[in-house]
Amino acid sequence: MTPHETQHDQPRQTRVDTTFDHFHDLYAVRTLGLKTSPVRALFAVANRPEVVSLAGGMPNIADLPLDVVGDAIRDLIGTRGTQAMQYGSGQGEPEIRERICEVMSVEGIDADPDDVTVTCGSQQALDLVTRIFCDPGDVVMAESPSYVGALNTFASYQAEVIHVGMDEQGIDPESLREKVSGARRAGKKVKFLYTIPNHSNPSGISQSEQRRRELVEEARRLDLLVIEDNPYGLLNLDGEPLPTLRSMSPDNVVYLGSFSKTFAPGFRVGWALAPRFVRERLVLAQESATLCPPVFSQFAVATYLANWDWRGQVRSFIDMYRERRDAMLSALAEHMPEGTTWTRPSGGFFVWLTMPGGLDSAAMLPRAVTELVAYTPGTAFYADGRGQENIRLSYCYPTPERIEVGVDRLAGVIRRELDIRATFGVGASSGRHPRDMGPRPDSV
Amino acid sequence: MTPHETQHDQPRQTRVDTTFDHFHDLYAVRTLGLKTSPVRALFAVANRPEVVSLAGGMPNIADLPLDVVGDAIRDLIGTRGTQAMQYGSGQGEPEIRERICEVMSVEGIDADPDDVTVTCGSQQALDLVTRIFCDPGDVVMAESPSYVGALNTFASYQAEVIHVGMDEQGIDPESLREKVSGARRAGKKVKFLYTIPNHSNPSGISQSEQRRRELVEEARRLDLLVIEDNPYGLLNLDGEPLPTLRSMSPDNVVYLGSFSKTFAPGFRVGWALAPRFVRERLVLAQESATLCPPVFSQFAVATYLANWDWRGQVRSFIDMYRERRDAMLSALAEHMPEGTTWTRPSGGFFVWLTMPGGLDSAAMLPRAVTELVAYTPGTAFYADGRGQENIRLSYCYPTPERIEVGVDRLAGVIRRELDIRATFGVGASSGRHPRDMGPRPDSV
Repeated sequence: MTPHETQHDQPRQTRVDTTFDHFHDLYAVRTLGLKTSPVRALFAVANRPEVVSLAGGMPNIADLPLDVVGDAIRDLIGTRGTQAMQYGSGQGEPEIRERICEVMSVEGIDADPDDVTVTCGSQQALDLVTRIFCDPGDVVMAESPSYVGALNTFASYQAEVIHVGMDEQGIDPESLREKVSGARRAGKKVKFLYTIPNHSNPSGISQSEQRRRELVEEARRLDLLVIEDNPYGLLNLDGEPLPTLRSMSPDNVVYLGSFSKTFAPGFRVGWALAPRFVRERLVLAQESATLCPPVFSQFAVATYLANWDWRGQVRSFIDMYRERRDAMLSALAEHMPEGTTWTRPSGGFFVWLTMPGGLDSAAMLPRAVTELVAYTPGTAFYADGRGQENIRLSYCYPTPERIEVGVDRLAGVIRRELDIRATFGVGASSGRHPRDMGPRPDSV
Repeated sequence: MTPHETQHDQPRQTRVDTTFDHFHDLYAVRTLGLKTSPVRALFAVANRPEVVSLAGGMPNIADLPLDVVGDAIRDLIGTRGTQAMQYGSGQGEPEIRERICEVMSVEGIDADPDDVTVTCGSQQALDLVTRIFCDPGDVVMAESPSYVGALNTFASYQAEVIHVGMDEQGIDPESLREKVSGARRAGKKVKFLYTIPNHSNPSGISQSEQRRRELVEEARRLDLLVIEDNPYGLLNLDGEPLPTLRSMSPDNVVYLGSFSKTFAPGFRVGWALAPRFVRERLVLAQESATLCPPVFSQFAVATYLANWDWRGQVRSFIDMYRERRDAMLSALAEHMPEGTTWTRPSGGFFVWLTMPGGLDSAAMLPRAVTELVAYTPGTAFYADGRGQENIRLSYCYPTPERIEVGVDRLAGVIRRELDIRATFGVGASSGRHPRDMGPRPDSV
């Protein structure tokens, strides 16, 4: 198989061309906010095997026990096929909801299967949560930077995203208070805070335990609902999981989980764990959206969890990703020009890089692809145009050797950009002070 | 397995109780339109094996070759598992989109795989189409009666449904013209006509070929987009498929298809075939909703289609459903009291029954369940409160013997209702004239 980029990792920037579209006047207002990416064509090129892609967020599932999974699913079909291939519950099947509670218990979450709603990947959980809470113009608070797929979803419901300041400990509670209060004073309805506390996509930052407590406390003071998105929670490369926000504050946290990174994304099984009343609405929204989430997938994932040492499999994923993360951090230290900074993730898939001298990562991408390396420009992860000098690098999919080659190539591209800037005096100094780590505290 | 009702077949009538809901003030306006069904508890009872359920729309998939499917999917995992379990394209995988075009060609549709968007069941196609077209207050034209799942989706996007008159030939083009013109004169934006031309859910009516031509012509005159929902198109029990609206008018028809009735619903693989510009937006909406539709399911369905005589399987489904339809029609003729009328479907899953004497099918349901028979009240299929005297009966899931027993029981329930009305003089005459068939032309 040729690794293909998931297109949703690409930055949205240009609207669909409607010049010849007969239905041009018929679309909903929200549809005008759906944007196509100008770098799609570029990513098609980036999928060539000679290009090292540090752009995608695809997990490496090559080590899964395919024979075990295949036999177990064949047996599933033989014994319970007519159930697994039939319509199911809008909330999700009881068996997988029980398994999901087992998985969450590893992170200290004590949950009732009845509070779980299964979704078509956790992206759909995000979609349904936004659907039930956000009217056009409502405000969602998000990290800076924040997950591009979430920003796309918020935009599709015409919600306004306000980025909250972050430092290397995660969200700054003081910034959260200021931004929420400011928005409320301006008459805006703040619907929730969206956060990825563990190994954030794209920053790679994890909230410290102390910061989590402060954040949860601040959210309570603000009477603010928190959406905790936790796809990478079990992929701690350096230690044990920190407590989830949900476990600290069950009443005002909606927790989103996924099997995409701990098992496989192709089944599209994610979930939302929500307070009872919210869960009721999520199920109604799910019925309206799909009738029921993928039933066969739910049976297949439950079968995998029952027939295989999934905890051991996660440990082996951790070893594999740790090697790749280390390869990337070593390569960055070895090759990157002075003034370039980056985060040092303790888990997950991503490193967030800040280039020196006001370079523009989106403008630089075609040149990088010409040099056979691809990445995701930082602007994809902001709703407000920031991130120009940032790059998200992923170490999840390529081998350590390819990562080393890719980072070396990228360093060469950045160095040449810096040379050009120095020679022609363009943007050589942006007036910004580089910091020790990527996502700078948002003090605005 | 105990056959369980799909909850989406249940009528929406009451709002979720929010008395103790802390988030009560936080929901989007659209969420207030999401209604829970008062007969949910009743349906739980109706799932008991002693109750004959004529309520659900579950296909009978017991005759699928489980061993063939199981072996083929095991081989798929062994040979292409890392691809089938990985993230995929937001539009859907190329292989299944090609297979989908093959399936559609059986009904005379000449389509390019590039114009197909794969969805999480065709319900999600409906959701995405409504998402990209409907702002709150926009108008959707629908048959009377129309599919409850579609009405739920339209309501969740705050669209207004205007029912169009029908007779035994399908939608009345004159009524369509009047209703669309009237809505436009009132300043409303009419976004599309939603129709199930083949073996409609719930009426069982199929549009005649002549009527299809008139309908398509009228839609062109009105410059009206048509959403053609066709889950039952291949399940013709008495003859060959009639031409699809899409094949008559490719430019202004969005065609929705599904494998739920011709293979199995649990994979949740449906699709939309749409004009290029609409397709582009559907893909963007899909990426925002789920990143990508269920990948493993797409590989599994494509594998089934490649490894099995699926056309022969559909023929065998047809024989099985014909026997059940015939059993239902015979039982209705034998048992139903005078004045009761019903449709005579040439395919699909449903018979639409009209009771005499102004009986109320929703009020009667608890008594029916007590008598060990369940059905779906007709009010579920109207957005405007009509359908009180109607009942949707499905013959897809129970055996012919059970169907006979169920119809006999239902006839007894109706007869007793009529006796009560006659004795106490309530509603014995509603002033309505019973007609030969169910969905009466809507002449209002």
